[in-house]
Amino acid sequence: MDPEAVAKQFVDFYYQTFDTNRPGLALLYQDSSMLTFEGSKIQGAAAIAAKLTGLPFQQCHHSISTIDCQPSGPSGGIIVFVSGLLQLAGEQHALKFSQMFHLMPGPTGFYVLNDIFRLNYA
Amino acid sequence: MDPEAVAKQFVDFYYQTFDTNRPGLALLYQDSSMLTFEGSKIQGAAAIAAKLTGLPFQQCHHSISTIDCQPSGPSGGIIVFVSGLLQLAGEQHALKFSQMFHLMPGPTGFYVLNDIFRLNYA
Repeated sequence: MDPEAVAKQFVDFYYQTFDTNRPGLALLYQDSSMLTFEGSKIQGAAAIAAKLTGLPFQQCHHSISTIDCQPSGPSGGIIVFVSGLLQLAGEQHALKFSQMFHLMPGPTGFYVLNDIFRLNYA
Repeated sequence: MDPEAVAKQFVDFYYQTFDTNRPGLALLYQDSSMLTFEGSKIQGAAAIAAKLTGLPFQQCHHSISTIDCQPSGPSGGIIVFVSGLLQLAGEQHALKFSQMFHLMPGPTGFYVLNDIFRLNYA
């Protein structure tokens, strides 16, 4: 397993799904998954999907600037650290963000155990 | 163990040590530790300490804006996600940064298994 390849594939899939089919993100999380979104803590796939689909913007587009990854230990996890820009429909300026994911191997591929998102205010 | 308390204590100690006694950071890493600093990958406590002490600036001051944390799984780890400002001596403007740490329990307390640092260019 090549962590770089897993990270790249995950990042491509995650943000494309976020931008085109946000409810589909639910499949990436499990009941043990945690999301901290701008300081707000949510646990479990259903609650996380509800949070993401309920965000107060509909159309958006993520542009990825950097992807860093590291293996996270003997359990076979991978940490993925992303920076990029989030363009909301109708807004003039894109928002800078940083996000990290802790991916864990599951029966049907990797799932997101940890997810932390922050806007980087200018 | 309260992850929030561990994260807060770690962040306080890490950045105070970085700003006042950078070689002391070596004690926070082990041979399995990984640092990705602005895309550059370093492994092992000695190499990481050499990288951090060899950065092309001496005096600096970190100001922390946000700290998020989550337990990272059954191994007892904690993920810490930090955003803040890095002020270099003699520079007019502080640099925005994001950094994540994966802390693991060791025989003498938590150590840093994963460390990823990125400047957030404006």
